Amino acid sequence: MKKGNVAVLLSGRGSNFAAIVRSSRADGADFTVRLAVSDCGEAAGLKKAARFGIPAHHIDPALFPGKAAYETRLCELLEREKIDLVCLAGYMRLVGPVLLGRFPGRILNIHPALLPSFPGLDAQAQALRHGVKVSGCTVHFVDSGTDTGAIIAQQAVAVRSGDDVERLSRRILRQEHILYPRVISMFFAGRLQIAGRTVIISE
Amino acid sequence: MKKGNVAVLLSGRGSNFAAIVRSSRADGADFTVRLAVSDCGEAAGLKKAARFGIPAHHIDPALFPGKAAYETRLCELLEREKIDLVCLAGYMRLVGPVLLGRFPGRILNIHPALLPSFPGLDAQAQALRHGVKVSGCTVHFVDSGTDTGAIIAQQAVAVRSGDDVERLSRRILRQEHILYPRVISMFFAGRLQIAGRTVIISE
Repeated sequence: MKKGNVAVLLSGRGSNFAAIVRSSRADGADFTVRLAVSDCGEAAGLKKAARFGIPAHHIDPALFPGKAAYETRLCELLEREKIDLVCLAGYMRLVGPVLLGRFPGRILNIHPALLPSFPGLDAQAQALRHGVKVSGCTVHFVDSGTDTGAIIAQQAVAVRSGDDVERLSRRILRQEHILYPRVISMFFAGRLQIAGRTVIISE
Repeated sequence: MKKGNVAVLLSGRGSNFAAIVRSSRADGADFTVRLAVSDCGEAAGLKKAARFGIPAHHIDPALFPGKAAYETRLCELLEREKIDLVCLAGYMRLVGPVLLGRFPGRILNIHPALLPSFPGLDAQAQALRHGVKVSGCTVHFVDSGTDTGAIIAQQAVAVRSGDDVERLSRRILRQEHILYPRVISMFFAGRLQIAGRTVIISE
């Protein structure tokens, strides 16, 4: 059976990237991580990729005249590696029409809140400021908005008394590391179907 | 030990009202439901109250010149019965300054979603339309907004494939019936403390 080819886009430490790679190396995994790309040269995720023996690229958006040119370069790389699915994992940029147009329905993101609550930056801090007792994480298809695409899977996580951003983030992150690889497997098993805003998951 | 006196305000069938009453009649309960009040004469909850032997009142807002007069009448009733805590349970009106002013920090509401997602009417339908995979219920202190008050407790509930509004509502309602009495007990045990928007629950 041919395995699916995954690229991970990241801007930071790449903990979800590492979880996805580990899952891809488990017995029976139906995908391979072919590529890590960062918009940020200092991203620790790039070093993690090297340790995993996965090709890692820094594409600096500042070297391009605009988002379209930057994403065109990114897409060349993705297409050269025959990437089937693009997974954003702590990638701190809105995806533009070039990337969306070349990978329609094939870009995922994970967000550390139960969307539609707390989209955008610092979701865990937003949740704590709001005083919610349950937060969590969401894997969704990417569209042109900020964390607005169709939701594939969510996992609730309790907010506990005495939580600060770091403690809550860590608890949510543990669930992200389970949820994201699971959704990628669903994708390659052909189990995800988008109907309007709803993602139908077949058995 | 003196038990706390609860009034339930409702507009509909009163299923949370019934759950609260049942809980109040369990061994060791620290509150009694003294009163059910509905703004709607046809509310099935009023008949439920009669069956429970709990005084039930219909106060028709249309008979008053405005919300302040209506709530003044409501407060007379609540104060006559020495109500400590007002629980909204499917009460379809925004609470105004008269009631808020006479029961500061002593009005609760339950909402069938994980706030701040899906406030207002038809929360379960909103959740299904948005395509979330996790919804739930929230008990919160009431302020002058629509489901905006400080959150006390939340319970996540899975959205399943094939859910319609009725199935999802039923699944959430089962959790509401557990969560709401539990929070009322916390209130009377003196375990709830509001700090800004955050409710601290002591052990």
